[in-house]
Amino acid sequence: MANRRARAGNRRTQRIRQHPRADKAGLQPGTLLYVGKELTQPTLATLTEFGPEPDDLHESALVDVQCHLPAPREGHTIWINVHGLANTEFVKTIGRHFGLHPLVQEDILNTEQRAKVEVYQGYLFITARLVHADETANIESEQISIVLGPHYVLTFQERPTGSFKGIREALQNEQSQLRRLGADYLVYSLLDKLVDRYFTVLEAVGERIEAVEDSFEDGPGPDHLGEIQSLRRSLLAVKRGLWPLREMINTLQRDEPDFFRNETQLYLRDVYDHTVQLIESVEALRDLVGSLQDTYLSLQSHRMNLQMRVLTVITTIFMPLSLLAGIYGMNFENIPELHTHNGYFVLIGVMFAIALALTGFFKYRRWF
Amino acid sequence: MANRRARAGNRRTQRIRQHPRADKAGLQPGTLLYVGKELTQPTLATLTEFGPEPDDLHESALVDVQCHLPAPREGHTIWINVHGLANTEFVKTIGRHFGLHPLVQEDILNTEQRAKVEVYQGYLFITARLVHADETANIESEQISIVLGPHYVLTFQERPTGSFKGIREALQNEQSQLRRLGADYLVYSLLDKLVDRYFTVLEAVGERIEAVEDSFEDGPGPDHLGEIQSLRRSLLAVKRGLWPLREMINTLQRDEPDFFRNETQLYLRDVYDHTVQLIESVEALRDLVGSLQDTYLSLQSHRMNLQMRVLTVITTIFMPLSLLAGIYGMNFENIPELHTHNGYFVLIGVMFAIALALTGFFKYRRWF
Amino acid sequence: MANRRARAGNRRTQRIRQHPRADKAGLQPGTLLYVGKELTQPTLATLTEFGPEPDDLHESALVDVQCHLPAPREGHTIWINVHGLANTEFVKTIGRHFGLHPLVQEDILNTEQRAKVEVYQGYLFITARLVHADETANIESEQISIVLGPHYVLTFQERPTGSFKGIREALQNEQSQLRRLGADYLVYSLLDKLVDRYFTVLEAVGERIEAVEDSFEDGPGPDHLGEIQSLRRSLLAVKRGLWPLREMINTLQRDEPDFFRNETQLYLRDVYDHTVQLIESVEALRDLVGSLQDTYLSLQSHRMNLQMRVLTVITTIFMPLSLLAGIYGMNFENIPELHTHNGYFVLIGVMFAIALALTGFFKYRRWF
Amino acid sequence: MANRRARAGNRRTQRIRQHPRADKAGLQPGTLLYVGKELTQPTLATLTEFGPEPDDLHESALVDVQCHLPAPREGHTIWINVHGLANTEFVKTIGRHFGLHPLVQEDILNTEQRAKVEVYQGYLFITARLVHADETANIESEQISIVLGPHYVLTFQERPTGSFKGIREALQNEQSQLRRLGADYLVYSLLDKLVDRYFTVLEAVGERIEAVEDSFEDGPGPDHLGEIQSLRRSLLAVKRGLWPLREMINTLQRDEPDFFRNETQLYLRDVYDHTVQLIESVEALRDLVGSLQDTYLSLQSHRMNLQMRVLTVITTIFMPLSLLAGIYGMNFENIPELHTHNGYFVLIGVMFAIALALTGFFKYRRWF
Amino acid sequence: MANRRARAGNRRTQRIRQHPRADKAGLQPGTLLYVGKELTQPTLATLTEFGPEPDDLHESALVDVQCHLPAPREGHTIWINVHGLANTEFVKTIGRHFGLHPLVQEDILNTEQRAKVEVYQGYLFITARLVHADETANIESEQISIVLGPHYVLTFQERPTGSFKGIREALQNEQSQLRRLGADYLVYSLLDKLVDRYFTVLEAVGERIEAVEDSFEDGPGPDHLGEIQSLRRSLLAVKRGLWPLREMINTLQRDEPDFFRNETQLYLRDVYDHTVQLIESVEALRDLVGSLQDTYLSLQSHRMNLQMRVLTVITTIFMPLSLLAGIYGMNFENIPELHTHNGYFVLIGVMFAIALALTGFFKYRRWF
Repeated sequence: MANRRARAGNRRTQRIRQHPRADKAGLQPGTLLYVGKELTQPTLATLTEFGPEPDDLHESALVDVQCHLPAPREGHTIWINVHGLANTEFVKTIGRHFGLHPLVQEDILNTEQRAKVEVYQGYLFITARLVHADETANIESEQISIVLGPHYVLTFQERPTGSFKGIREALQNEQSQLRRLGADYLVYSLLDKLVDRYFTVLEAVGERIEAVEDSFEDGPGPDHLGEIQSLRRSLLAVKRGLWPLREMINTLQRDEPDFFRNETQLYLRDVYDHTVQLIESVEALRDLVGSLQDTYLSLQSHRMNLQMRVLTVITTIFMPLSLLAGIYGMNFENIPELHTHNGYFVLIGVMFAIALALTGFFKYRRWF
Repeated sequence: MANRRARAGNRRTQRIRQHPRADKAGLQPGTLLYVGKELTQPTLATLTEFGPEPDDLHESALVDVQCHLPAPREGHTIWINVHGLANTEFVKTIGRHFGLHPLVQEDILNTEQRAKVEVYQGYLFITARLVHADETANIESEQISIVLGPHYVLTFQERPTGSFKGIREALQNEQSQLRRLGADYLVYSLLDKLVDRYFTVLEAVGERIEAVEDSFEDGPGPDHLGEIQSLRRSLLAVKRGLWPLREMINTLQRDEPDFFRNETQLYLRDVYDHTVQLIESVEALRDLVGSLQDTYLSLQSHRMNLQMRVLTVITTIFMPLSLLAGIYGMNFENIPELHTHNGYFVLIGVMFAIALALTGFFKYRRWF
Repeated sequence: MANRRARAGNRRTQRIRQHPRADKAGLQPGTLLYVGKELTQPTLATLTEFGPEPDDLHESALVDVQCHLPAPREGHTIWINVHGLANTEFVKTIGRHFGLHPLVQEDILNTEQRAKVEVYQGYLFITARLVHADETANIESEQISIVLGPHYVLTFQERPTGSFKGIREALQNEQSQLRRLGADYLVYSLLDKLVDRYFTVLEAVGERIEAVEDSFEDGPGPDHLGEIQSLRRSLLAVKRGLWPLREMINTLQRDEPDFFRNETQLYLRDVYDHTVQLIESVEALRDLVGSLQDTYLSLQSHRMNLQMRVLTVITTIFMPLSLLAGIYGMNFENIPELHTHNGYFVLIGVMFAIALALTGFFKYRRWF
Repeated sequence: MANRRARAGNRRTQRIRQHPRADKAGLQPGTLLYVGKELTQPTLATLTEFGPEPDDLHESALVDVQCHLPAPREGHTIWINVHGLANTEFVKTIGRHFGLHPLVQEDILNTEQRAKVEVYQGYLFITARLVHADETANIESEQISIVLGPHYVLTFQERPTGSFKGIREALQNEQSQLRRLGADYLVYSLLDKLVDRYFTVLEAVGERIEAVEDSFEDGPGPDHLGEIQSLRRSLLAVKRGLWPLREMINTLQRDEPDFFRNETQLYLRDVYDHTVQLIESVEALRDLVGSLQDTYLSLQSHRMNLQMRVLTVITTIFMPLSLLAGIYGMNFENIPELHTHNGYFVLIGVMFAIALALTGFFKYRRWF
Repeated sequence: MANRRARAGNRRTQRIRQHPRADKAGLQPGTLLYVGKELTQPTLATLTEFGPEPDDLHESALVDVQCHLPAPREGHTIWINVHGLANTEFVKTIGRHFGLHPLVQEDILNTEQRAKVEVYQGYLFITARLVHADETANIESEQISIVLGPHYVLTFQERPTGSFKGIREALQNEQSQLRRLGADYLVYSLLDKLVDRYFTVLEAVGERIEAVEDSFEDGPGPDHLGEIQSLRRSLLAVKRGLWPLREMINTLQRDEPDFFRNETQLYLRDVYDHTVQLIESVEALRDLVGSLQDTYLSLQSHRMNLQMRVLTVITTIFMPLSLLAGIYGMNFENIPELHTHNGYFVLIGVMFAIALALTGFFKYRRWF
């Protein structure tokens, strides 16, 4: 029972949250409102300025956005990373500072966007979904928004996920290409990390599929069905994140020479290849989940077949014997066999013979 | 029974009304005739003229179309909103006044169009479907026709739905962009409201799916099947409204620079993104409904399996015991066991032993 | 039985006639031979010449094609409508008169073409399928061939169907656009009529689907399956007629400015919209038929479930009782219970108790 | 048993031969080797030279390819038709004479190509599959290779099939277009014949489908399944031949003005239309075969339903009666009913009443 | 049991290894790491230099990459073939020598790429998957990377597979085109070998399908299901290798005139045709596997039908007989029949008559 309840709970958290915009349906377009999970995450921001030279790295917390944002020095890049979007005023201030279009600000706060890239005057706006899987391969995703300007990168996340820790560490390393190549390579690195998360998630799903497959050995049960449906939903969620992501990276790689140098575009092509590979994996996994369902139904049908066979064999053997016993239990005055000395023993023998013959017949017909 | 009847009723109202044109099949092309639901709605119209200045807003009811329609003042926009299309003469008069092509007038009155945009000399003709869902997530839709001219917007609805109330309120606000940006932005606002309705409808469908899913816990019944079919139809109806809508907005956003300024096209791109997102939601919900059906069938098959197992176990245990009782109920003169003192008790013991052994065997084979 | 036979008959007439060309397989290309249903329809033709002026309308039967065909007067249009194609000589003569390519003549007589448009030197050749549905929504279709020249229109039908009666009436009306706009508008009117027939047919199919759905209330039977298959075939036949028709009208509307004036192309765009709408209806109806089949199978499975449950409940209740009766019917000398005064009544009571307990258990488990 | 064996045999011959190239896998590209069915067909060739004049027709057997091949006279066309490809030397010699690329020679001998057209310097290389159906609608196909040069046509077949007999006869006729139009029209005629064969084959398949459908009246059996699978394979084989054929003819019709005159291209367009029509027929037949399978499964499920109903009805009626008989067969000393005078007759009456009541109940519930 | 375990084992080795990149997820892009099967294969390389002249062939093992790589002489081609990729340093050195981009080096070592071709400054980078099937038609694949420069070809394999033995032998032959045509023809030959492997693999799969089909004669079992799933996976794996391979070869054939001469492109077109043919074979085989599953389920359902029929027949025949026996086993004092002389024999006769009548009825209804 607890099991069932837990399953129902799982299902509920995993349900793809469909229509957050419905809450906004009555508002005027252009009203800024945070449309996402109810978070109590405070809005925090870090400002990183870096350049190619060994000591060209400055990190600082951005407590008050009202304060003066430094203009990046020649050859330097500014990266502002914002966690937690509840404080819409904060986002608005940054938006105003960098001249972001009201629709961009709206999209940053409305965290149920599909991955896309949009070109605006002087900057590029990118959104994508960052996925993670829990231990039962349920998928959760959140929105990452990236703004790429000439010498700055802005990133907006719903909560700190540690996904970009590796990038922050690489920035420490003065040899890394990140320090040398600047804003567009930084955006590439962010996307690469994001895509790598999908690999991890698909691996978790793959392992879950194997687990379900292995547990089939103990006979199929209704729990299996729930798990299969849950896996199907997980893959659906991954697919919904991945398809527009591929499309978006393809657009970046091919159509945005103004924002990405040739050198970086080679790297974007590589990320693009990974998304293609991921999509093929998703398709293959979906196929596997589909064949899990087939196997489940087949096993159940096989089991029912077996039960039917047992029932038929038992009935076919015992019914004639019972009839014989019934016949000789009748109270007719004149039943000659009843008065013979060995009648009973002969009948028992006949019963055995019938049982053996029928058993042999069923064996011959491979019924068991 | 009442339940069944209600279901049938539901089904009937929900049926996608297919071929209203069939009634017109015998008429000449060009004959104006209202082809829609039989409405007793009177035909009403409001005329709104507005401009950017604080007191540039005039609303008036348009009782008699024969009366002189004012030419909009420089920089002003006229919006005529018509409710109820039974009075075809009214539509014809407006059509003549604004020089609408006969086919446009026909399309306005034939309220089973699919969403489309058509360019005519000097104006743009747009139709789309406005959806709403009742409490069981059945979908009803009606047609909205929009004509966008240089300084005027005409809208035609089958009945007053209150969908554009928010826009009328925004017009009151002299700060709103609507007042400043004029006719094309007004059309954008109308489309945005229309698209938001789809979000609300999909949310209703999503909740209904969850409700059905939850009610599976009490075992699957034939009512579930009806509900699943009804959900499938609802999604089909939404899909039929949404696909051409997306296509239409895409056309507006890309191909109509004459009617939409660059500034407004950014907003149209945003609406377009919403339709793409909606379509993905529809696909995901269709997938969920499909897996509801799978679950339903699987649960039913599982239940039958269980029944078969009970039947087989009961039969397998009781048939041998009945045979034994039958054998010792025979009337042979010479059955030695019958005359022993403890025969009866030994046999009862043997019966228990057989029953226990078989029960143990079935437990071992995990039959229950 | 009669029912079954009738069904089989239906099926046969409805079968999509696949390969009439097979009969021609041995002939040389270019041999003219009427390849269609075996009709005893005589070949008849009417010649209509009309112009914009009130008395510019002359209709006459064309008994003998050998006779001199009048050249149309300046601004006039000639429409020759041929019914019944058995007289190939007739078609050949007309063909020679208007300079039709041998392949065109072959296509007119081979009445199993798919809808297409072909441009020849100086004229346009159009074929399409005209559909009608009988009372059980079985589809029959026949071929209409249209030749559009500069000032003439030729139409060829397998038999008189009355489909173009409305057009002939409109020609009587000297105000109608037909009179004014001439040959290309006439072709548009013909196509519009043809497309309207599809609306009527789909409505018939839709009603049939509802009828089948309603009859499910009385339990699913094998007749339902036949009806579902028959509906599926009808929709397949409509689809096969409609897809190439849409494609063809699209070609006309976009690519043939030489034969259709701008003014008429607006009307063709309207017909094109209708075909798109029809195709969506077909898809929706196919979906409905698919879900009819699902419902049918589900109801059958539900019914079997019910039977199985009855069987299991009956068996589970009566087997133990029968065993008890069997035990006390045994002939052991020493069965103490048999000799008690109330043994019989106690046992009957015990039997009732067991039956009640099991019934209660099954009720609790919601087995009935 | 014999039946089953025959079916297995059928299946084997029908299996689409997949990978003849596997035998060649170890060889160098460019090695000429006949990769086809093991034929003992001798390699034969006929040489036909023809022109427009009445006596411009010369046919001769081409025994020794080493012999001098005549150059065609001005305005004449040479057609060399080769049957049986076992003699690779023969093909090689012809290839060398006409300057065929080694890959073309390889493709002629490797008779498992898909239909294609390839342009080489000075000639066009065409391969296609010629199909025929045996009496159970199993499909066999063989490869036809055609080389079209400026004034010559080469055709290569695996064995003489008589498919081109009609063409040879038409050549006899000095009035035929073939004589006048030369090489490209000859190729068109060959393709037309080839396409007509598909019509014949699909008709055979269609008749087979009807036969299976009709035999369903006697109840579904496992043989039906085999037939359905066999039909599915046949259609798959036709489809595999037809799709690339259409593509190929489309290429010829649109892209090869160097090899086909305008006049002939009109005829190719006609053949192209036929392939499109054929493909639609294949799709429709596949749909029919799919619904055969549905019908089969449905009938089987319906049958099982019926059996289950009989079983349940019988069990429900007889079990209570047997219990009653068992109760009054018990040996309790004190069973008052046993000693009444009419007890037996009353009980028999009660039994009849119960049986009637249950039968009535089942009738009321429409169980039979 | 052992059987089941073995099956599980098989399944595990066959599972498509999804996400090797997951292990790399934490690393910086650009870090070189071998991501493939854990091999203990030493890294070996052979250097082959060849030209058109008879003695222009030099083969040598490349033990130490640090050593000076010879520049190819005029008109000569260098082919370096590397087996075993564990020694990343080796790959790096070669990469540096030929100026390979870091992403190329990464792709060579990350052996789970999908087939692709990438143009870099001065060279072409190709990856593809080489497949082989074990005796149960399980597919394993490994990555082949090919770099094509102006006068050199580099190939990288995970382990020596002997696939290119034929090419090495052909190089020995001074007459072979390989010697004359150089680097691009060598790449063609490599791809041709690779594609031929797919033919071999599909043949193995086809044979396995036939084997499963034949074993259906003995009745369907759960092992069949496992085999069908395993075949489906094999085909999925082949498909995943083949689709991008086709795409890649198509790109080579059409878009890379800088790297492939016209002469070689004819050969590439031939390889391309083979991939198209392979893909059609895969689709046909997938269809066959799908119909295997249908057959399996149908046979199982047929079997269950049979069992149900036996059960129903036995029950229907024996239940009335048992009731009769039970009735005459009752202990009523007044049962007149019991006292007649022939009552017993008459009853036995009646029983036979009932049994015969029911058997006849079932025979008539074709129940067996």
